[in-house]
Amino acid sequence: MNDPTSEPIWDLAHLAHVELLTPKLDQSTRFFTDIMGMSITATQGDSVYLRAYDDYEHHTLKLTASSEAGMRHYAWRTRSPQALARRVAAIEATGLGIGWNGGDLGHGPAYAFRSPDGHLTELYFETEKYACGPHDQSALKNTASRFPGRGINVRRIDHLNLFAADIRAFRDFQLSNLGGILTETIVDNLDERNPRAVWFMVNSKSYDLAVTLDYLGARGRFHHLTYAVNSREEVLIAADICLENGIQIETGPHKHAIQQTFFLYVYEPGGNRIEVANTTARLITDPDYQTVFWTLEERKKGQAWGLPTIPSFHTQGTPMVKE
Amino acid sequence: MNDPTSEPIWDLAHLAHVELLTPKLDQSTRFFTDIMGMSITATQGDSVYLRAYDDYEHHTLKLTASSEAGMRHYAWRTRSPQALARRVAAIEATGLGIGWNGGDLGHGPAYAFRSPDGHLTELYFETEKYACGPHDQSALKNTASRFPGRGINVRRIDHLNLFAADIRAFRDFQLSNLGGILTETIVDNLDERNPRAVWFMVNSKSYDLAVTLDYLGARGRFHHLTYAVNSREEVLIAADICLENGIQIETGPHKHAIQQTFFLYVYEPGGNRIEVANTTARLITDPDYQTVFWTLEERKKGQAWGLPTIPSFHTQGTPMVKE
Amino acid sequence: MNDPTSEPIWDLAHLAHVELLTPKLDQSTRFFTDIMGMSITATQGDSVYLRAYDDYEHHTLKLTASSEAGMRHYAWRTRSPQALARRVAAIEATGLGIGWNGGDLGHGPAYAFRSPDGHLTELYFETEKYACGPHDQSALKNTASRFPGRGINVRRIDHLNLFAADIRAFRDFQLSNLGGILTETIVDNLDERNPRAVWFMVNSKSYDLAVTLDYLGARGRFHHLTYAVNSREEVLIAADICLENGIQIETGPHKHAIQQTFFLYVYEPGGNRIEVANTTARLITDPDYQTVFWTLEERKKGQAWGLPTIPSFHTQGTPMVKE
Amino acid sequence: MNDPTSEPIWDLAHLAHVELLTPKLDQSTRFFTDIMGMSITATQGDSVYLRAYDDYEHHTLKLTASSEAGMRHYAWRTRSPQALARRVAAIEATGLGIGWNGGDLGHGPAYAFRSPDGHLTELYFETEKYACGPHDQSALKNTASRFPGRGINVRRIDHLNLFAADIRAFRDFQLSNLGGILTETIVDNLDERNPRAVWFMVNSKSYDLAVTLDYLGARGRFHHLTYAVNSREEVLIAADICLENGIQIETGPHKHAIQQTFFLYVYEPGGNRIEVANTTARLITDPDYQTVFWTLEERKKGQAWGLPTIPSFHTQGTPMVKE
Repeated sequence: MNDPTSEPIWDLAHLAHVELLTPKLDQSTRFFTDIMGMSITATQGDSVYLRAYDDYEHHTLKLTASSEAGMRHYAWRTRSPQALARRVAAIEATGLGIGWNGGDLGHGPAYAFRSPDGHLTELYFETEKYACGPHDQSALKNTASRFPGRGINVRRIDHLNLFAADIRAFRDFQLSNLGGILTETIVDNLDERNPRAVWFMVNSKSYDLAVTLDYLGARGRFHHLTYAVNSREEVLIAADICLENGIQIETGPHKHAIQQTFFLYVYEPGGNRIEVANTTARLITDPDYQTVFWTLEERKKGQAWGLPTIPSFHTQGTPMVKE
Repeated sequence: MNDPTSEPIWDLAHLAHVELLTPKLDQSTRFFTDIMGMSITATQGDSVYLRAYDDYEHHTLKLTASSEAGMRHYAWRTRSPQALARRVAAIEATGLGIGWNGGDLGHGPAYAFRSPDGHLTELYFETEKYACGPHDQSALKNTASRFPGRGINVRRIDHLNLFAADIRAFRDFQLSNLGGILTETIVDNLDERNPRAVWFMVNSKSYDLAVTLDYLGARGRFHHLTYAVNSREEVLIAADICLENGIQIETGPHKHAIQQTFFLYVYEPGGNRIEVANTTARLITDPDYQTVFWTLEERKKGQAWGLPTIPSFHTQGTPMVKE
Repeated sequence: MNDPTSEPIWDLAHLAHVELLTPKLDQSTRFFTDIMGMSITATQGDSVYLRAYDDYEHHTLKLTASSEAGMRHYAWRTRSPQALARRVAAIEATGLGIGWNGGDLGHGPAYAFRSPDGHLTELYFETEKYACGPHDQSALKNTASRFPGRGINVRRIDHLNLFAADIRAFRDFQLSNLGGILTETIVDNLDERNPRAVWFMVNSKSYDLAVTLDYLGARGRFHHLTYAVNSREEVLIAADICLENGIQIETGPHKHAIQQTFFLYVYEPGGNRIEVANTTARLITDPDYQTVFWTLEERKKGQAWGLPTIPSFHTQGTPMVKE
Repeated sequence: MNDPTSEPIWDLAHLAHVELLTPKLDQSTRFFTDIMGMSITATQGDSVYLRAYDDYEHHTLKLTASSEAGMRHYAWRTRSPQALARRVAAIEATGLGIGWNGGDLGHGPAYAFRSPDGHLTELYFETEKYACGPHDQSALKNTASRFPGRGINVRRIDHLNLFAADIRAFRDFQLSNLGGILTETIVDNLDERNPRAVWFMVNSKSYDLAVTLDYLGARGRFHHLTYAVNSREEVLIAADICLENGIQIETGPHKHAIQQTFFLYVYEPGGNRIEVANTTARLITDPDYQTVFWTLEERKKGQAWGLPTIPSFHTQGTPMVKE
């Protein structure tokens, strides 16, 4: 990234979808449809495919029945077929590549690889855009489907947060091979040799992927998946809806100091952590944005308005591991 | 744009700044500082340079004294020096180029050209990022300067809207030479040969530039400049602040059908139209987003919730021309 | 009201319920349940009884099948049995009383009378407070039932607006016999002899009843019924929900200059005008609040931020009459 | 209160004002003007009189220089001169009365007494309503003065929270002699013989006064004073303004389970706790509202969405006492 003659890499378009595993497929599905306000696009085998009302693809969440909670894979969509080819070439050179598969419901051929921490990741370009029908067409042509008026009414997938045992390895792999910008990071000290958490931006949203240190030292775990709502007021309403429906609230609503996200963290019935968030009007359009560093000392101040970071944030991930 | 072997052009980073002309420099400056909540970075000659609290560059607005209102120039920042070179080469080939200049306060060398409709436009990459001091440092490192707590508290520049006599020429020039995506358009009919208005996206914000037909047939006029606030609630508060301070409200608050922007249009004392807006959680991250077409017939429905488009929107621009 | 030795009358507690007539009972019921987010407490004969989630009584809306839209009656709850007795005595002295009836589902004996304009009105004290069950109990004991997470999620009945042919007669009758304060009024001139519209407060909410001049000269018509939501943001969301579900929006969202209510006016399928509103933090706790007068000249400015008052506001009421 | 033949007492109109003591008069004044957005009505001797933009009286806060923080007195306005006479007679019969004084800037003769816990309290009816001038007149006649567009922009005084050593004594005195309703209470057990906290309503706002147990056993201390803003969004913005200006945030923003208030607690520079709050659309208009009881066991759940009650809430009051 420091070669002045090279251009930054902007080949990823956005976080595309996440496949979550759940031991309670029916209850998890009802959580995402009735509480989160999402819709089912398809069911196939042990999997249910879902999207938020303004997600433009076939799905952004695939729920798959499993003996325990966790994440099977997640995927990036690239900006073009050429961008896909460039990223695949880069990953193959690292030795972490797995290879091409035929895709899934809703998207074309995908290239699979493992992150340095072991997370199964896919890249693809060809996609099936969601085609709403008479029953769910929005009155506004620029909305992917009708505002549901049900539960939390999440609008679109926002970001994914992974746990990793080795943050530095993940960071270097991501920036070198997938591109984008490291917008913020937590470090032990200021020379960035020992990152504790990293946030990656691939478009103008300040992050699509975050990776934070798993204090239990496990590899390849899932931390949380986030859907966006249109306002902070709706995050507050989401908290009431969770309260009224017996959904466990872990922490929030409050504002993160890092990335300024206004957040609410809950657990879906299968045991995976889900965030409902709003980022107000924040965007990063600066193409050479300088990474913001936060030391562990600074993090002791807690979140933006002083709420202490909840200890379970450092250890609770899926699949569950014994402390 | 239709060659399947070519990649889309993503060389522009964002709308960078606008230079507005005002016959009432002092009053216009007080409007932007006291009412909009912006800050003065510098004054030089007949110009005052201003920025919103989270604008990362030296300025996003340059106010220059003049005998009448209007826009002298506007500028794009590119994503890299290489991207700048590519765009300059493309523009030079069109014959609309003017040439390089030494830049201005806050940014480096700029390449100037005329839009097909005559608007003076600049491209640059080298910039001076705003360095806040002890008096205006935010408590959050990821904010460019302290939230002012004054007036409307606009956060950042959002987009520019120009008038043009020939929308098709502007559209084709922009997409071919500057890149990005035409996210929405108003057309006479559905074969897009006669566009009435166009919205261009260059990052993930659904538009940084809009160009609408000047019903008076004038060339190169300014329609409005928009600053973003964090919530729709703050747009409503902005309306009260304008009401309480004798600022002329033209229309709104209401929601645009096109682009879904929640808007408030007012006139600054110099006579230029200014918008305060919020776009909720909308982003376009789809790299091959298909343009949304609106016919004139559809536009008769008015804005999203039915407010008729105000007639002055089609004729009132700066500089003023006689109808 | 001008006798310095007399105390103001605070015998009414609040607007209790409204019985609306609809030629489309099923569709009207679905509007109030699916779109407004209200719940059915009971059905009896041709009537459906409904309440918002934080209405504490058995119902605040009674929908009754009829050949045309309109209002059959509305009711006030008094602050005590003694207060009820005092108001009945006052009304009987006017000759407008009808007499006692045995009440209805959800409340005890009621005293019926006609307003000077002919509106059927009832007064009662004994009530059946809504008892939620396991299926709709709120997690917060101080909420009458669970937040529904469905449609607009209106919280409580807010106010009723009547049309009348003789505003002065209504005003004088109301203040003399029912008490409360005239918080705001529109007058032809400043000596208040010719009111065009009146707003009555009986508790700390700035009005529970408004009466406006029927430009068609009809007597005893209904203008609109209003339910409150928790924020202006939810009024905006309500507008989207109406847009997405084909509910006719008449005007708004916008802020009234009079009473400052943030409003959205729609038509339920039966033809009655319904308002969704929020009044932010406004209350009137001043026990000798001085009436705010608005002249017709001042009203030409439109609503708070300049939206013109929609002409149908002066003529469109139910039952419909020919202009 | 249990005599079925007696009517409830509705003689108090609202909490009128609070006199806070501060060892840092200048800094406290700047906090209330620059951060809270209030205005100075008068200064006299060691006191500064302030009001929020929609407070209708001369002042709602009197800041008086003192060697330590605390509250000198607070005052209720009654609904009429007759109501005042009735309440004075009741208090005199208790032996806690002090007697009449000539009033203060902004209001007429006041009757002073001590609460059972020793808080100096006053009652009055005659008041000087705030008369705005050309410099601060609102564009809307129904607003007491212009929306300031400065800092937090608090709208009006909302409620007062006192500490007391004997909650039962305070409760019984208040309800018997001053009237109103006990809307909510925390009790050791469900027979209400041992209240830990009480909330009193005198109009339609669910409380104007709260009294909570002082775990340090001190008598007559001050807990906090609350000003209302128009939306929860503005409470969130208030948190940012405090963060940006070095104002100590104690807890929040979050939603109270009791009374549902959306709160932010901070310390003004003199050391007194101040709350910024919004109650959404909640009102209690039920004239025989049944008190909501919360056991200590239930309180262990924390605030509405699970935030633990901060321990300093039980001990930190002014004047400071040693634990």
